[in-house]
Amino acid sequence: MVINFFYCFYRCCCRGDPTMFVEYWKKAGEKSSIMIPGWHNLSYFPNNNGGNVCWFLEKEFSDEVKKLHESVGNATTKDRYIVVGTGSTQLYQAALFALTSTDDDNDHDYSSKPMDVVSAVPYYSSYPAVTDLLKSRLYKWGGDAYKFDDKNEPYIEVVCSPNNPDGHTMEPVVNGNGGKLIYDLAYYWPQYTPITKPADHDIMLFTVSKSTGHAGTRVGWAIVKDEKIARKMTKFIEISTIGVSKDSQYRAATIMRAVTESGQSISLQLAGNFFEFGKTILVDRWERLRKVAAENGAFSLPKYPKQSCNYFGEIREAHPGFAWLKCNLENVEDCESLIKGNLNILVRGGKNFGMDNKKYVRISLLDHEDKFQILLDRLATVSSSSTKIKA
Amino acid sequence: MVINFFYCFYRCCCRGDPTMFVEYWKKAGEKSSIMIPGWHNLSYFPNNNGGNVCWFLEKEFSDEVKKLHESVGNATTKDRYIVVGTGSTQLYQAALFALTSTDDDNDHDYSSKPMDVVSAVPYYSSYPAVTDLLKSRLYKWGGDAYKFDDKNEPYIEVVCSPNNPDGHTMEPVVNGNGGKLIYDLAYYWPQYTPITKPADHDIMLFTVSKSTGHAGTRVGWAIVKDEKIARKMTKFIEISTIGVSKDSQYRAATIMRAVTESGQSISLQLAGNFFEFGKTILVDRWERLRKVAAENGAFSLPKYPKQSCNYFGEIREAHPGFAWLKCNLENVEDCESLIKGNLNILVRGGKNFGMDNKKYVRISLLDHEDKFQILLDRLATVSSSSTKIKA
Repeated sequence: MVINFFYCFYRCCCRGDPTMFVEYWKKAGEKSSIMIPGWHNLSYFPNNNGGNVCWFLEKEFSDEVKKLHESVGNATTKDRYIVVGTGSTQLYQAALFALTSTDDDNDHDYSSKPMDVVSAVPYYSSYPAVTDLLKSRLYKWGGDAYKFDDKNEPYIEVVCSPNNPDGHTMEPVVNGNGGKLIYDLAYYWPQYTPITKPADHDIMLFTVSKSTGHAGTRVGWAIVKDEKIARKMTKFIEISTIGVSKDSQYRAATIMRAVTESGQSISLQLAGNFFEFGKTILVDRWERLRKVAAENGAFSLPKYPKQSCNYFGEIREAHPGFAWLKCNLENVEDCESLIKGNLNILVRGGKNFGMDNKKYVRISLLDHEDKFQILLDRLATVSSSSTKIKA
Repeated sequence: MVINFFYCFYRCCCRGDPTMFVEYWKKAGEKSSIMIPGWHNLSYFPNNNGGNVCWFLEKEFSDEVKKLHESVGNATTKDRYIVVGTGSTQLYQAALFALTSTDDDNDHDYSSKPMDVVSAVPYYSSYPAVTDLLKSRLYKWGGDAYKFDDKNEPYIEVVCSPNNPDGHTMEPVVNGNGGKLIYDLAYYWPQYTPITKPADHDIMLFTVSKSTGHAGTRVGWAIVKDEKIARKMTKFIEISTIGVSKDSQYRAATIMRAVTESGQSISLQLAGNFFEFGKTILVDRWERLRKVAAENGAFSLPKYPKQSCNYFGEIREAHPGFAWLKCNLENVEDCESLIKGNLNILVRGGKNFGMDNKKYVRISLLDHEDKFQILLDRLATVSSSSTKIKA
C-alpha cells in the first residue's frame, strides 16, 4: 500500500461524531451540568407535559426547543407541535409511519403496495437502511429522487438541508402531486451554514447531536404543522420505545438553555457564544482542508454561495460538518473497498450515498483537533500524479 | 352510572407505572444520584465499551447488570452477551429482527412469509401492537400460543415469566421443532416473585422500569447466549436509534449499583434492602386486595404456589406488580368499553391480553399508596349482587 487517503482513521469519522464541541462544554461550566437525584423520573409519564400532544414530552424540553429556535431564527415553532424522539433517526421512522399508516389499528390488510421513499443523491447514507430495516409493507426505500418515476401516486421525499453529505441547501426535486415531504434539518444551525430564514415546513427534524454536539444523549425533535401527523408520530414512538428517556430530555433542555443564553450575553458564559465557537473552528478547518486540496490536486471540494446570515448579521458561505471529497485520481477503482480491505478501517464511500465509490468519499470535520490534523497530514501526502496504488 | 369498578383511575395504572418505588429512592440519598457535566457523553461511542459485542454499550452499565444478577441469583450472565436497549420494548423488536432477518444486507426478497410470533394467553398487551407496528415482512403477530397451529415451520414464542398480566411462572407451550424462544423476564425480581433459580435461556429480556422502578430512564438489557444473535440485535438498535442514551446508561448503572449494595450491607443505605422494601409493600397490598375480594365476591384473584425463594431464603408465594382480576358479575358486557365510554378513563380489559373483556381486567399495584387506596375503596363498593349498571 503506497498511499493511504480519503478515509476515516477512526470509526467515528464516518458517523460525524461531534466531539469537537467537547472543548466548548468543558469551558461552559455549571450551567450546562445536570444533577439527577435517584427518585427523579421514575414514571413513564412526564413531570410536566404542559398539554402537549406528544404525551411523553417534557414541557421543559419543548420550551427550550422553542426558545433556541426563536433565538437562532432557523425554524418557525409558533402554533406547531413538538414531538420528541430518541434522536432524529427515530423521528424519521415516526414520520414515515405517520405518513403511510392508516387510522385503523385493526387494519391488517397487507396487500397494499408500500409507499416509495426517495431523496436526491447524494443522500444521507442511513436513509435506505433505516427505511428498509423491517421490510415494512407501509413504505420502502425508492432511491434517488432525481430518478423517481412519478406516476401521480403517493410518495415521500426526504429533503435534507443543508445536505448530508455535501452541505448544499436543498429543495424538493420530484414535485409530484402525491408527494409528502420530510425536511431533515439536522445541520441548519449557524455553525454550519448561513441562516437565511426561519424554516417553515410540514415536518421538520432536528437533533441535539448536531446542534449542541450531544450525540450520546440520543435526543431529537420534530416540528410538525398537522396535529394528526404529530399524534401518529407520537403513537409510533409510544409503541416502539414507550417514549423517550426523561433523563435525556432534561439534560438536553439544560444544554439548549445554555446555548440560548450563550448567545444572549457573553458575560454569562466564559465559553462565549456557542455558535461562534463552532463556526470559528469550522471556518479554520475548511481553510486548511481547501489549502491541502489546492496544493495536491488529488481531490476537489464543493463550493458554496455567499449568503446573508441573519444570525451572525453577515454575508458568509457554508462550512459544513462534513466534506464531500471528489477524487481526481484515475487509477482507483473503489476507494471504500481499497481502504476497508487493506486497512480494515470503516469509511463511507460514495456508494452509500447513492453515488460512485470511486469518485466520492465523505469525511467528518467534527472530530477532535488532533484527529483532524492527522487527516490533513495524510491527505497532503496524496498528489494527483500518484499512480501506484496496490489494492 | 351506579358502580365504578375494575378500572384505573389514572392513566398510569394501566401501564404499571412503578411510582411506588419513589419513596425508597427518596431515602436512598446521594448514592443513587448522578451528576452529568455538560462535556460528558457527547460522542455516539461509549466512554468505555470494554470489548463488548454491543458497540454502544457502556462497560459500567454491563458491569452493574452482571453484579446485580449475581447478587440476586435470578439470571446467568457468565459467558453471555449483554445488549442494552431503549427499554425492553426495543430489545423485544431487536430480538424479533435477529431471529428473522437474513445475514444479507442486500436481501430485498420480500416474497417470503413473515414468521409467526406467539405467546400464551393472557399475553402482555403490547406484544401484538409492537410486533405488527410496521407490517413487517419478517414477522407478524400470530396470537395465542395455545392455539398455534405448529406445522414444523419456524416460529417465535414469547415466554413472559412471571407473566404480565397474571403473575404466573411460564414455560413454552408450543414446543415445536421450529420454535425460537424469547424470554421476557421483566418481573423476575424478588419483590414480585420467589427467585427459584438463575434463569438460563437463549434470549432473556430485563428492564430497569420494573427492577428498580426507573421507567422514565428507558433502559433495558438482553442477556444473549449466541454471539450472532447479539450482533444482529445490536445492528437493529444501531439502525433504529443509533444506540441508547449514554446519560440513561450511566444513570441506570448508578441506580443498579445502589440496589446491589443495598442488599449487601444495611448500614450502607438508610433506605434498607431495596427488594425487601418492594416485597413488603406488595405483600401488604395483596393482603388488602384479597380481603376486599373475599368480602364482596364480585371478583376473584389468581392464586400462587408457595415456593422456595433463594434470595430471601424463605418459602413464599408471588406478589405480582399487577392483579389480574376475574369479574364475577353477570350483567357486564364489556368492562373496558363501559369504563372508557362513561368515564373517559383508560383501562386495560382482558381483550388486550387475548382474553375476554367481560371477564378480565388488569390493574397495577405499583402506583403511589394514595392511588392504590382509592382503588381499594372503590372496589369495596362493588358487590356480587350488583345488577344495575348503566352503559
